[in-house]
Amino acid sequence: MTVKIGVIGLGMIGRDHLKRFHTVISGAQISAVCDIHHAAADAVAKEYGATAFYDAEEMIYSDVVDAVFICSIGPAHQAQILAAFKAGKPVFCEKPLTPTAEESQAIINAEVKAGKRLLQLGFMRRFDPGYQALKQAIAAGELGDIMLIHCAHRNPSVPESYTLEMAINDSATHEIDIIRYLLNENISTVRVDIPRKKTRRALPHLQDPLMVIFETESGVRIDDELFVNCHYGYDIRCEVIGENAIAALTEQALINTRSVHGNAQHITQSCMERFATAYDREVQHFVDNVAAGRDMSGPSSWDGYVVALVCDAGLASLKDGETHAVVIPEQPALYR
Amino acid sequence: MTVKIGVIGLGMIGRDHLKRFHTVISGAQISAVCDIHHAAADAVAKEYGATAFYDAEEMIYSDVVDAVFICSIGPAHQAQILAAFKAGKPVFCEKPLTPTAEESQAIINAEVKAGKRLLQLGFMRRFDPGYQALKQAIAAGELGDIMLIHCAHRNPSVPESYTLEMAINDSATHEIDIIRYLLNENISTVRVDIPRKKTRRALPHLQDPLMVIFETESGVRIDDELFVNCHYGYDIRCEVIGENAIAALTEQALINTRSVHGNAQHITQSCMERFATAYDREVQHFVDNVAAGRDMSGPSSWDGYVVALVCDAGLASLKDGETHAVVIPEQPALYR
Amino acid sequence: MTVKIGVIGLGMIGRDHLKRFHTVISGAQISAVCDIHHAAADAVAKEYGATAFYDAEEMIYSDVVDAVFICSIGPAHQAQILAAFKAGKPVFCEKPLTPTAEESQAIINAEVKAGKRLLQLGFMRRFDPGYQALKQAIAAGELGDIMLIHCAHRNPSVPESYTLEMAINDSATHEIDIIRYLLNENISTVRVDIPRKKTRRALPHLQDPLMVIFETESGVRIDDELFVNCHYGYDIRCEVIGENAIAALTEQALINTRSVHGNAQHITQSCMERFATAYDREVQHFVDNVAAGRDMSGPSSWDGYVVALVCDAGLASLKDGETHAVVIPEQPALYR
Amino acid sequence: MTVKIGVIGLGMIGRDHLKRFHTVISGAQISAVCDIHHAAADAVAKEYGATAFYDAEEMIYSDVVDAVFICSIGPAHQAQILAAFKAGKPVFCEKPLTPTAEESQAIINAEVKAGKRLLQLGFMRRFDPGYQALKQAIAAGELGDIMLIHCAHRNPSVPESYTLEMAINDSATHEIDIIRYLLNENISTVRVDIPRKKTRRALPHLQDPLMVIFETESGVRIDDELFVNCHYGYDIRCEVIGENAIAALTEQALINTRSVHGNAQHITQSCMERFATAYDREVQHFVDNVAAGRDMSGPSSWDGYVVALVCDAGLASLKDGETHAVVIPEQPALYR
Repeated sequence: MTVKIGVIGLGMIGRDHLKRFHTVISGAQISAVCDIHHAAADAVAKEYGATAFYDAEEMIYSDVVDAVFICSIGPAHQAQILAAFKAGKPVFCEKPLTPTAEESQAIINAEVKAGKRLLQLGFMRRFDPGYQALKQAIAAGELGDIMLIHCAHRNPSVPESYTLEMAINDSATHEIDIIRYLLNENISTVRVDIPRKKTRRALPHLQDPLMVIFETESGVRIDDELFVNCHYGYDIRCEVIGENAIAALTEQALINTRSVHGNAQHITQSCMERFATAYDREVQHFVDNVAAGRDMSGPSSWDGYVVALVCDAGLASLKDGETHAVVIPEQPALYR
Repeated sequence: MTVKIGVIGLGMIGRDHLKRFHTVISGAQISAVCDIHHAAADAVAKEYGATAFYDAEEMIYSDVVDAVFICSIGPAHQAQILAAFKAGKPVFCEKPLTPTAEESQAIINAEVKAGKRLLQLGFMRRFDPGYQALKQAIAAGELGDIMLIHCAHRNPSVPESYTLEMAINDSATHEIDIIRYLLNENISTVRVDIPRKKTRRALPHLQDPLMVIFETESGVRIDDELFVNCHYGYDIRCEVIGENAIAALTEQALINTRSVHGNAQHITQSCMERFATAYDREVQHFVDNVAAGRDMSGPSSWDGYVVALVCDAGLASLKDGETHAVVIPEQPALYR
Repeated sequence: MTVKIGVIGLGMIGRDHLKRFHTVISGAQISAVCDIHHAAADAVAKEYGATAFYDAEEMIYSDVVDAVFICSIGPAHQAQILAAFKAGKPVFCEKPLTPTAEESQAIINAEVKAGKRLLQLGFMRRFDPGYQALKQAIAAGELGDIMLIHCAHRNPSVPESYTLEMAINDSATHEIDIIRYLLNENISTVRVDIPRKKTRRALPHLQDPLMVIFETESGVRIDDELFVNCHYGYDIRCEVIGENAIAALTEQALINTRSVHGNAQHITQSCMERFATAYDREVQHFVDNVAAGRDMSGPSSWDGYVVALVCDAGLASLKDGETHAVVIPEQPALYR
Repeated sequence: MTVKIGVIGLGMIGRDHLKRFHTVISGAQISAVCDIHHAAADAVAKEYGATAFYDAEEMIYSDVVDAVFICSIGPAHQAQILAAFKAGKPVFCEKPLTPTAEESQAIINAEVKAGKRLLQLGFMRRFDPGYQALKQAIAAGELGDIMLIHCAHRNPSVPESYTLEMAINDSATHEIDIIRYLLNENISTVRVDIPRKKTRRALPHLQDPLMVIFETESGVRIDDELFVNCHYGYDIRCEVIGENAIAALTEQALINTRSVHGNAQHITQSCMERFATAYDREVQHFVDNVAAGRDMSGPSSWDGYVVALVCDAGLASLKDGETHAVVIPEQPALYR
């Protein structure tokens, strides 16, 4: 069966996924695209031979769509997800699940009520071969008990629309999820350290870089350097310190080049480039689950909810510089 | 459409592909398996819910099969391929296309007569991200004109059945194909240098290592170290020397581990591990072409034929130590 | 002129320096050795053909000694240094200058009164080619303005005598000095973060690892992971984050080895091994200055004093977890 | 004792050594400089406070000189060395010992007659920490029996005066010596493979790159890529393939820099930069031997002679493309 996909939201990430469906993904076709900007929807629909919609719910309930792929802005997510649930159609939703943890509650309630997972959340890093190798090394016990993790999250630059809060909600959010994935436990405290120095490449409203310090339930300490105007590339680092050994992501480079610039390994320039394989795999994973009639798996609504709770604590610390605890309700059995 | 795949030959590579179809490949299902060993065919058929065949032609002509996946021994290839062509079914064939260049001629004739490509050959390295990045760097002109390539092809060990000729036909064959892929030109001469030293890990009938020297039509000199009892891993190296810069495959490692063994990057232990992504991609490529009703693409019968011609020259040099020329007939338009 | 060296203190570092004088250093000879343990002094004196002393002052004033090399325990330093100053003999002193910043004051006063530098302090890292390359990259402006530094200081293990305070006074002390060296500015605040997790390889009285956070006068934030039972090696890391680029120490490995343990680079097992070149160079630097009749240069009493002030703030933070300011008196012109 | 050094020949390498004596070497002073160009000798003598000579023998016999440091052109070496021997003064001589193997015979005869080593030859690579680590790994048996070595010798560019013969006599000469050093055995055959391609950066009279194939007495096969207009740097590679493991020189880089050019390690731009430590150490080794009144040690006249024999075979192969044997007379006991 070829899965008929309806994509909502035709911004940068939406278009990136469309290209992915067109060139890489097997077993699916773009049957519908939806955007509130009619011209955008029409143009993209024409390009991909899909039906154009301007209203998300209309598309969700349409027969031309088997599965819903949400790439719209965060505030639109909750309603679109719940509509898809109601229509009985599997959902892939780009992060964040919802802008606040509170709004995610309704989604979790709906899934719990349905008694099965209906949604896969777009935490693509869990599909990255590098992080998977790290997780495997941890799980195999090679490193022994983990005590510290050093992370860095660097973007070449960010647009003017990027706010200080987004450093937590859009950038650190990835490390928050991946730490939970690597360690199989939750984060219990967050503290944001604001260095006195900031790069002159950052716009005046931004402090850049930031250092965020997390502690997990068992006491693992993680520091996360967020540096979103680092100038040189999109650069994601992760080093896990255990009692026996230390493992870290390599450069993930395929070739070395010896030239007048020395012996060099390419550094990726965007998350799309760095996580291309991860994006491909998360989408194929979704399509394969839909095609086989299986429940959704991979990153869940619950993951989205818990990450939002940690972000909330981070935002609070951003204001007062104190360490904030993260209070996580009991995890429903569905997500265990 | 889900492509119904019939696999012929259930040895190591056949079983590896079966697992791949089961866990990674989208849009296909194993509908039939065939092996002259009835018990093997029956057991595997049961495991994958497929129909067992003991006769290849019977399977090829059967309705339960849309596409033929040949993993049998080399001498069986020609007849099976021609049968599949006759049955109008697309073929994936593991290398070598045929044991000798001469036998490949009938396959090429059949394809040329059909006026379209009917077969994808299993030169999986062309789907390896590392080699693709090398090719891209060459094609982009970053390195300037290419003059030399240094290759190494190392296996941890080989079974007793491995003969000196297989160093050319089974091992060097991969470098022969990939050089053509990287440089877009043919190899014109081959010389095998037999070092006086051999590893004591090699069985008495084997000289190991060997050095094979190729020259391409334009004059690029390639040396290929073939060392099939290197003990430590399956290790494939390639360094391309150009007028402006040099590019080489990196370790292709995902993580660094700091332990009592130093700072280490894992080295793969088999071709299945080293080229896992390449194998996945070549098979998905085949399935996608079949599902879409497209002609075959990727490594062709012609590639298999030309590589066999180069191997023949290599075998001649293995005997007399001289430089042997490779005479390649005119390339049919179909393969350009 | 061959400089006649008198070494005080024949413990581990003292004996390491003796071997260095014997095998690597040019223009000097060990003419005297001194230890309160008579048997140790006698044995070493015999081995090196030197005169044995049991009393430091006696050796310092003896004619057989041109220059004084202090490797005794910290509490003995002040008296020995001042005696050497009085005797008009140049001093090399292993760190710490004195156990407390207060005791260092008398040494600084003496030098300032003399109007010239009389002592070189054993901060050997300033002579490490790796750190020198880092400093050069910073000074050359390649990195732009510096904002963050990530350090790690890892020992394979520590003896039972190692206390939590020593994590600051003996381990972090090196990063404290090298940060001042790299950045040409002082540290203004210190905070010790005590992770909840500790390695089970640490003895019960030790929290290990620790994270120490420094801020410099201009606002550069430095984190220093102190992990003194890391098990796998003596491993020193330093990554400097600037507005334009990032520079970090490499593995400093001379060879890669491909074996059943993967592709590996050796990690040093002790400070003597890691900083062998640095130790050689600092001592040769001292000897060359003495031989040429020049004033002392390189790490100074003032450096030792300021580092001690930072350590004092670190010890205070170790107790209360708060950020502590470092108050540094005006720097005498002699040390500018 | 401070050794009074007289330097003959004030070209590039001579001036580099002068600077070395001035800034790095302990226990020596430049007391005399000699050049047939009076103005050069006068200027350099003034700069270093040394006595100027225009005639080498005059300087050699002068009382202001304890030891003779020969940096003149090759054809002048024999006479200068023999004069120094006659004057009873230790000699450091830059490579080549003499332009032909034949001329070296007289030097060897003189040393053998004297019954002690009187000369250290400037094969500085033996003092390179990287090569020393390689040798140590081989000697320790980590790699098992050695079968192959892959070398590359790359210069950014060469002047018009550089001839094809110099690729053997000036460039390959270093690999020839270092192979003997690493393996403790001699080279028995040489073959030069001339690739059809040459870089357009090479001047018309030069084939560049070349591949030289050596075989040692025990049968180790070495290939040496000589590429003297590689454009990007002075780049020396060496990979040693053994039965158990493989060891290779690393980048020898002290820092990694992450910038818009990717993650890069600096590649040196000249032999002076690449082998700075090796040059420092070989000269200090010479000075220390002289100061201590010891016989000369390190690379010997015999090494120079044998390397010249191998070069002769290489030059013969350059002409006819054949494999040439190297016939080495019995080694005098003095050099064992």
